Amino acid sequence: MINRSDVVTATRRIEGRVRKTPVIAVDLATLPSPTLAKRAATSTPPVVLKLEYLQHTGSFKARGAFNRILAAREAGQLRKTGVVTASGGNAGVAVAHVARSLVTRATVFVPLTAPRIKVDKLLSLGARVHRIGERYQDAYDAAAKHAVDSGALFCHAYDQPEVCAGQGTLAIELERQTEGLDTLLVAVGGGGLMAGVAAALEGRVQVIGVEPVSIPTLAESLAADRPVDVSVSGVCVDSLGATRIGDIAHHVAARAGVRSLLVGDGHIVEARRYLWHHFRIAVEYGAATALAPLLSGHYRPEPGERVAVVLCGANTDPADLVVHPALD
Amino acid sequence: MINRSDVVTATRRIEGRVRKTPVIAVDLATLPSPTLAKRAATSTPPVVLKLEYLQHTGSFKARGAFNRILAAREAGQLRKTGVVTASGGNAGVAVAHVARSLVTRATVFVPLTAPRIKVDKLLSLGARVHRIGERYQDAYDAAAKHAVDSGALFCHAYDQPEVCAGQGTLAIELERQTEGLDTLLVAVGGGGLMAGVAAALEGRVQVIGVEPVSIPTLAESLAADRPVDVSVSGVCVDSLGATRIGDIAHHVAARAGVRSLLVGDGHIVEARRYLWHHFRIAVEYGAATALAPLLSGHYRPEPGERVAVVLCGANTDPADLVVHPALD
Repeated sequence: MINRSDVVTATRRIEGRVRKTPVIAVDLATLPSPTLAKRAATSTPPVVLKLEYLQHTGSFKARGAFNRILAAREAGQLRKTGVVTASGGNAGVAVAHVARSLVTRATVFVPLTAPRIKVDKLLSLGARVHRIGERYQDAYDAAAKHAVDSGALFCHAYDQPEVCAGQGTLAIELERQTEGLDTLLVAVGGGGLMAGVAAALEGRVQVIGVEPVSIPTLAESLAADRPVDVSVSGVCVDSLGATRIGDIAHHVAARAGVRSLLVGDGHIVEARRYLWHHFRIAVEYGAATALAPLLSGHYRPEPGERVAVVLCGANTDPADLVVHPALD
Repeated sequence: MINRSDVVTATRRIEGRVRKTPVIAVDLATLPSPTLAKRAATSTPPVVLKLEYLQHTGSFKARGAFNRILAAREAGQLRKTGVVTASGGNAGVAVAHVARSLVTRATVFVPLTAPRIKVDKLLSLGARVHRIGERYQDAYDAAAKHAVDSGALFCHAYDQPEVCAGQGTLAIELERQTEGLDTLLVAVGGGGLMAGVAAALEGRVQVIGVEPVSIPTLAESLAADRPVDVSVSGVCVDSLGATRIGDIAHHVAARAGVRSLLVGDGHIVEARRYLWHHFRIAVEYGAATALAPLLSGHYRPEPGERVAVVLCGANTDPADLVVHPALD
């Protein structure tokens, strides 16, 4: 598994290759939104939003991909056949970006159902794209076989130590930006980001994994004391729609005492709109998930509790975000 | 006119009422965008983007409105009839927001041509809205008459000392966030923001006013040595479309040696798309204007020159910003 020292190592390894993303402090209690503010907690310090959607490739996934691939290169495990992954989403784009940045080849397997726009994005980053099978699992199996056959480095979307440790660098960065942090809210799908930040902050900061009620990977694994398959649906399937939490994420969560907090899609949609209307921040539903329980009142900080929220990705179609009367 | 001490006073006055907006450092030279990066300057330090679009009301206008209205309140000039302005755009929204925040009345005059969505936004902030005349000047005249008749405090969109000084607080904040700043690029319409930052940074940092070739208010006023009327058109008319630069802005620009840099609409459109595709930042055309000359090569920093760019507003319809293949 991984611990803070792995994340510290990753921080040094990827320095200069990822963006230090900024934070912004928000006083939820003073917001004039009539529907949201009254439900939100009062008498707490400003909530810190970590604007990780400003990261290369539009999500935190660049951190883990850089750490995975750079660690392999240091160990002499990166061959001319490059790297391979299975993902039509943020992980695939991140691997393609990192491969191009490090001048190696990226091969990405996606299911036949992957939208053309996602395939085009991968192609524009120089990746070789293979469309295979109806389900994600088919693409995953083909990618794993390709890795064995070709010697290319397999990059998992979330369940590898270097990937998780890379994502965790976000937490080290955040600690330097925010004094006295008590609690960090982070969205959970496969759990790579949660695992990384929980390992980095274990014994220092309370980490809460927020997940849609329709994709309860962490809640179900904690209840069963092992990763279990769940059915997935709802607005976050694009970004958080893993059918099972990673082994690493499960173990780190159990070890570090990470709690699961489930939120409904309605509150996630509301949180995404809120970020646009009040901050002109356009994020994907998966990223808005982490903020939702603060706005809905499902998470109420204690007086004096310093809370941060990771806005982890913005690969969204902003077409439904319009200039809304309620902006302030 | 105004100078740095006015801006320092404004900074103290509005502290806690406006957001400290974050900055992000961008190494333009290393961006893999084939069309933009090669034209952009190389061998310069990272460019600092000031994310002022995250301000309350989605633009810097909240700073000036707070300073104008708070200064009047301190001086006992704020009556029960509240404040009045003429603007269907960012300035009007900012005045309405500030009035609500300070529990006073806002009256906003807009021309009959103002879109319903903008009127609704003002109404949702609690403003009283009067639609009058075909041209902006009609609304302006009616607002001025209302101020005289009712005793309400007239808030100009850009040409009042307290308004300009309030906008300039952005520069004081930026100086604390960025060491060794050499140059600041800022968009110019009526010139309130430019005047404020130029007054704040006079003798310290080179300020460059960037304006669309189709709205050359600063360029024409510098050439004529006085504010002159210009015809306005193009993608930025919503936010930068003043027909004449403010007197204060003209004088501060002339005194402080602010240069005008003109950019074509094509480069502004490209800069706005660039910010979305590479950063998931959605801004209005007027805000993208300040970045355009760095991307187009119309402004090439010297080796070692530290440049910052103000992204000053995001009251844009993001519907034409889609997930684009070229993201990285």
